[in-house]
Amino acid sequence: MLKEICQQPEALERTLAWQLPHINKFREFLSKHRPRLVVIVARGTSDNAAQFGRYLIEIMTGIPVSLAAPSVHSLYNAALDYTNTLVVGISQSGESTDIEAVLARARECGAITVGITNEPKSGLANMAEHVLLVRAGREKSVAATKTYTGQMLSLYLLAYALGAKIRLDHLQQIPEVAQAALALEPQVSELADRFHAMNHAAVIARGLNYANAFEFSLKMMETSYVVAERFSAADFLHGPIAIVDRDFPIFLFCPAGPVWPSMKETLEKLKARRADAVVITDRRNKEASLLATETIRVPVLLRELYTPIPYVIPAQLFAAALAKAKGLDADRPRGLRKVTQNL
Amino acid sequence: MLKEICQQPEALERTLAWQLPHINKFREFLSKHRPRLVVIVARGTSDNAAQFGRYLIEIMTGIPVSLAAPSVHSLYNAALDYTNTLVVGISQSGESTDIEAVLARARECGAITVGITNEPKSGLANMAEHVLLVRAGREKSVAATKTYTGQMLSLYLLAYALGAKIRLDHLQQIPEVAQAALALEPQVSELADRFHAMNHAAVIARGLNYANAFEFSLKMMETSYVVAERFSAADFLHGPIAIVDRDFPIFLFCPAGPVWPSMKETLEKLKARRADAVVITDRRNKEASLLATETIRVPVLLRELYTPIPYVIPAQLFAAALAKAKGLDADRPRGLRKVTQNL
Repeated sequence: MLKEICQQPEALERTLAWQLPHINKFREFLSKHRPRLVVIVARGTSDNAAQFGRYLIEIMTGIPVSLAAPSVHSLYNAALDYTNTLVVGISQSGESTDIEAVLARARECGAITVGITNEPKSGLANMAEHVLLVRAGREKSVAATKTYTGQMLSLYLLAYALGAKIRLDHLQQIPEVAQAALALEPQVSELADRFHAMNHAAVIARGLNYANAFEFSLKMMETSYVVAERFSAADFLHGPIAIVDRDFPIFLFCPAGPVWPSMKETLEKLKARRADAVVITDRRNKEASLLATETIRVPVLLRELYTPIPYVIPAQLFAAALAKAKGLDADRPRGLRKVTQNL
Repeated sequence: MLKEICQQPEALERTLAWQLPHINKFREFLSKHRPRLVVIVARGTSDNAAQFGRYLIEIMTGIPVSLAAPSVHSLYNAALDYTNTLVVGISQSGESTDIEAVLARARECGAITVGITNEPKSGLANMAEHVLLVRAGREKSVAATKTYTGQMLSLYLLAYALGAKIRLDHLQQIPEVAQAALALEPQVSELADRFHAMNHAAVIARGLNYANAFEFSLKMMETSYVVAERFSAADFLHGPIAIVDRDFPIFLFCPAGPVWPSMKETLEKLKARRADAVVITDRRNKEASLLATETIRVPVLLRELYTPIPYVIPAQLFAAALAKAKGLDADRPRGLRKVTQNL
């Protein structure tokens, strides 16, 4: 797992190298076939990438996005009206049968279909009309890391193709930003050692980093059996903050920008309860570290739009280090398999 | 909380009494203004009702549904294209400012707006063009119960208005089915006593009952500070099943019908791990109790379409009884307030 986390800068380079030459042609195609709705269908870690794509596409293009519930198709056989719809399947292996089922039905209903996958010869790559290949290289660890960030990068490119004002030269800087985030490894390992006895946790975020809260908690569950909750800051204050007591660390993604006032209110409430609040941020946010008990600061100044990939890297590093600190094998979680099949 | 749980049959009667006289006119209106997309916006318990509405409307009408991310509007000021869209706000109090903000913007963008709320004079009721009043009576407990089932019933009526083949005489039987489910109270209390020391749990479901998994876990968090996970059966097997060990009870919603094969596979895996599996079901499913360590059986034969309201009642009863067994006051969770405001 740690090896694959560290491969991310080169994996992201490969994603760009494969996709950039095609993306302007795809953008031209979509400008003539602008969808009224984007539907994203995925499972597990890919579903967390989908959640990121949902915020990104709605914020940057104004097109409404729906995260599909695969069972509506696979168990209930519903015939959804997908005219003028772009349906995006995301799957690391490209071999998830219920995602293929949604795409097959979407094509019948007249949708434009897109597949985001790591595997060029997979069922998903064959099924979709347009394929964004992640090209992260074979991912051996059950806990997906480099395919998650590669899927996120592919979603930036998809948003660009849908007309978002995203600059390709900014996207080209993401691999080096990922490299800079890897330098946090010693600090994060030390933190994981300190938390080695933790059994539960919560991860809080909002907006573009909300998906990272899901992903961070999933990594802790998969590798270290930590019961990790994840919440939007707004929902957390409305109810689940009741579960917080001592020995219940809270991790918060705190970029500067539109989500900060909401995250700040959460941090203030947590401080009043003397909770252990670990903040992931960068130097653009000058206030976060004042309210945190521990600050993980990605060593690059980042516009909020580009925080999600570098911010998830210390989270991945933490999950890997925590498993090690607990004496567990992060690459062989009990009872897991890599590919989701239809049930 | 227990008192309000027990008020549900009469509260559901009031919901029907208020909405039935108007519903055919609304159905006629929507048949002339059929939306291409339904967007539902809500927070907390109401967001769980929204999740139910999402499955119900997609399965029964074929119209795609998106659960809105309020922050896309309230924090990022995105201008979404909501033409030919029905935007539904759900809020118990009707005073959640970010839900109102989404509806206000939706109206500007040409959407048809619907408010589902308990409060006829609330901001939401004033803002929305069409109002489905829940009329559950004042809800005093912070842990919402009767407004949740009232919102679900309102969503059946909304699906009907959108053309779903739902029979109004079937909906009229729901209050007595709720009454029958209340008879489970002694069995559920005994179970809660047995589990009084539990600190974490997971709730698993799929399809129409998936929302109940979120609601059940939220109730346990709010009233008893149990760290309660919730998963789709498909996602659970793909990763988080790793967290299960002894002393980690799993609750499963298991109606007969399309979701049962998937739930059955989950139960078999849990049995192999000797996990404590508590099943909520009814006599139409003859197999579930054979795989469960404990069976809560709603004493009415139910088509899967009508299981979500009666199935959540033993879950509510369990959360109330668990708080009592733990010596906590379910009506005064630490640090909670009833109304979500914008952050």
